Amino acid sequence: MPDAVRARAIALSLMLATALAAPLAAQEAASGWNEFALIQSGANSRPGPRQLPARSIPVPQAGVSPGQQAVIAAPYPPGWNAAPRTVAEWQDLVVRNAAPTLAALPGLREQLGVTSEPVTIAGVKAFVVQPRVLPAVNRDRVLLHLHGGGYVFGPGEAGTREAVLLAAHGGFKVVSVDYRMPPEAPYPAALDDSVAVYRDLLKTTSARRIGVFGTSTGGGLTLALVLRAKAEGLPLPAAIAPGTPWSDLTETGDSYFVNEFADNLLVSWKGWLGHAAALYANGHDLRDPYLSPVYGDFTGFPPAILTSGTRDLFLSNTVRVHRKLRQAGVEADLHVFEGQSHAQYYADPSAPETIEYHAEVARFLDAHLAR
Amino acid sequence: MPDAVRARAIALSLMLATALAAPLAAQEAASGWNEFALIQSGANSRPGPRQLPARSIPVPQAGVSPGQQAVIAAPYPPGWNAAPRTVAEWQDLVVRNAAPTLAALPGLREQLGVTSEPVTIAGVKAFVVQPRVLPAVNRDRVLLHLHGGGYVFGPGEAGTREAVLLAAHGGFKVVSVDYRMPPEAPYPAALDDSVAVYRDLLKTTSARRIGVFGTSTGGGLTLALVLRAKAEGLPLPAAIAPGTPWSDLTETGDSYFVNEFADNLLVSWKGWLGHAAALYANGHDLRDPYLSPVYGDFTGFPPAILTSGTRDLFLSNTVRVHRKLRQAGVEADLHVFEGQSHAQYYADPSAPETIEYHAEVARFLDAHLAR
Repeated sequence: MPDAVRARAIALSLMLATALAAPLAAQEAASGWNEFALIQSGANSRPGPRQLPARSIPVPQAGVSPGQQAVIAAPYPPGWNAAPRTVAEWQDLVVRNAAPTLAALPGLREQLGVTSEPVTIAGVKAFVVQPRVLPAVNRDRVLLHLHGGGYVFGPGEAGTREAVLLAAHGGFKVVSVDYRMPPEAPYPAALDDSVAVYRDLLKTTSARRIGVFGTSTGGGLTLALVLRAKAEGLPLPAAIAPGTPWSDLTETGDSYFVNEFADNLLVSWKGWLGHAAALYANGHDLRDPYLSPVYGDFTGFPPAILTSGTRDLFLSNTVRVHRKLRQAGVEADLHVFEGQSHAQYYADPSAPETIEYHAEVARFLDAHLAR
Repeated sequence: MPDAVRARAIALSLMLATALAAPLAAQEAASGWNEFALIQSGANSRPGPRQLPARSIPVPQAGVSPGQQAVIAAPYPPGWNAAPRTVAEWQDLVVRNAAPTLAALPGLREQLGVTSEPVTIAGVKAFVVQPRVLPAVNRDRVLLHLHGGGYVFGPGEAGTREAVLLAAHGGFKVVSVDYRMPPEAPYPAALDDSVAVYRDLLKTTSARRIGVFGTSTGGGLTLALVLRAKAEGLPLPAAIAPGTPWSDLTETGDSYFVNEFADNLLVSWKGWLGHAAALYANGHDLRDPYLSPVYGDFTGFPPAILTSGTRDLFLSNTVRVHRKLRQAGVEADLHVFEGQSHAQYYADPSAPETIEYHAEVARFLDAHLAR
C-alpha cells in the first residue's frame, strides 16, 4: 500500500475510533465496554508489545492548578513535526521559536527583579543573570545554566528564560552559557563551550560553591559536563539539577512510546527532535555518553535533583538517570508533576507548580552548596 | 447506535489502525508519517482533551533487566475486567487470584530464610513474618505491613508475600495484618483492623521504632492509618513506605487515562478495580480521606518513600501524594522504575529491580527508625 494511501486509511480509522470511543467512555458499565475489553484482551493475549487503542484523554482537574491546566490542555505547538533540510530552514525555525520568549523576557525580568548582562567568558558568549539584590548567603555561590532546546533552539538571550526564573526564585547569581549550536557548530561545540565556562568559573569560585542546572537538552548537557569534568580531572560541582534531561538521543526509553502524542510540547521523537539529534551528533554515535549521558558512568557524581511530569516524553530519560545515579550510590531526588508534559514545570511563571518546582531546586542547591 | 454494534465498530477500527500503524512506524521519514502527523495535529488543534491514536508499544530493552522485561511483556491477567455481581462470584475470583501466590510462598520463604507465624493481635488476625536470624540493629524495631489487592484480594497467608520479601531484604520483623475485607466486611473494617493492630504494637514498641508499609491498597491503607492516628492522637510511626498507593478510589488522576491499557496488571479502572472501590466503600463517599487519602491533610506526616513505574496506572496516585507531602513540608522520596506497570517492582523476586526496590525501602526505614 503506498504511504499516502496507508496514512489516509490510518487517519480515517483513528478518527472513527476516537469518535466512537468518546461516547463509550461515558457508559463504562454498558455491554459495549465488556465487548471492547474482550477485544483489547485479545490484542494483548501474547507476551510482547502492548496494543493500545485510540483514546481521548481528559485534561486533569485534581492536583493541577488552573494555570497549569491551560498549559496541559494547549494544542501541539507549531513546528513540532518540522523536518528542516537546509541551514536556512533550521534558522527560520529557530528564529520563529525564539520570538515569543524574546518578547516576554524584558517584562519577566522586570517583574521578578532580575538583571541580565551579556559577557564573554573564555571566549564563550554567556549572560550573567542575577537578582537586583543578591542574598548574603549566595554572595560567593554561582550557578552554571545550560539552556534547553534540542541543541538548536534558544540562541542568545532566548536561552536565558530558565536562568531568570531560578535567579529570582532562588536568589542566585547565574551564568547562562550561550553555547554554539548546529547547523553551524555541531557536537562537541555545545559541550566544549559549557566545559570552558565551567573551567573559567573554577578560577574564582570553589567547585563546592558551584551548582549546574538546565532543562531538557540543558539537563543532558549538565550530565555530560560532569562526565567531562570527571574525565578531565576537574573538581565536580557541589550539586546538579538536570530537569527532564535529554539523556538518550536515540528513541530508547519507554515514555518515548507510552507518552507519544500525549506530550503536547515535544509530541514525538519522530518530530523535530530526532532530526535535531542527528544534526547535533553530526555522524557521531548517538549512544556516546557525551551525547546520551544515560550510557555514562555516574560513579562519584554530585547530588542531583531531577524533575519530570507524568505525560513527559522524557519521563524515562529522567527516571533512567535517577535509577542509575541511585545504583551508583549518588544522592538523587526525583520529582514528577501530575499531568505535565515536557518541561512544563516552568511553562507558566505564575503557576503554583512553577513556584513549587523552583522552591524544590533552590532548597536542594542551598542544602548542598558551601556558603 | 446500540452498544454492541458500536463496540464492534470500535474494535474493527482499532484493529485496522493498529495493523496499519505497525509497518508505518518502521519508516518514520516516509511521507506517510508526515501525513499522519498532520492529521494528529488536526485532532489536537484546540485546547482540551488529548486525542491519542492506536499504537503498538515495544517492550523496553534498555534500563530493564531480562526478568523484568518478561514481567512487562506479559499479557493482561485473567480477570482484569471481571465485574462480579454476587458474593459467590467475588469469592471465586479471590480464591483463583490467591492460588499461585499460596503455591509459591513456602518455597519463597524457604529460599529467603524467612518464617511466618499466624497470630491474633487485638482480636485481629495477622502474621508475624521475620528472618530466621534477626539482625541486632532491628531487634527492637517492627514493621507493620498492610497488603494490597483492592481491598478484596489477598486473604490470609496470600497477603504476606510482600512481608516475606521485606523481612528478607531488610532483615526486619514484620507484622502483616490479615484485615477483614468485603463483601463480608466493607469499609471501615480494613482500616479499623489496621489501626487496632498499630495501637497494640504501641503498647510494647515505641512509635519511633515502628515503620508502616504496603503496596497499592496497602499503600492507601498506610496513608489512611496515619490520618487516623493523627485524628486519634496516637504517636505517628517513624517512617512509612506506601508503594504505588491507591490514594484516589475515584477515576481521578492523569495516569488512570494515559496509562490505561499500557499497564498490564491493572489495565483499567473500569475493570475489577472500580467495582472493588464501590464494594469496599459500601455507599461511603469515595473521596473521604480515609478511603482516598490523597484528599487528606498530610501536615505532620512521617518521612515517606514512594515507588511507582512509568506505565503504572497508579503513577498519578503516587506522584499526587508525593507532591502533597512535599507541599506539607514532609520529607518524601520518590522512585519510579522504567517501563513497569502497577506494583511490578516486586513481581519477580530475583529481578535486580526487586532487589533494588527493597534496598531503597530498607535503607530509608533504617535511616528513620530509632534503634
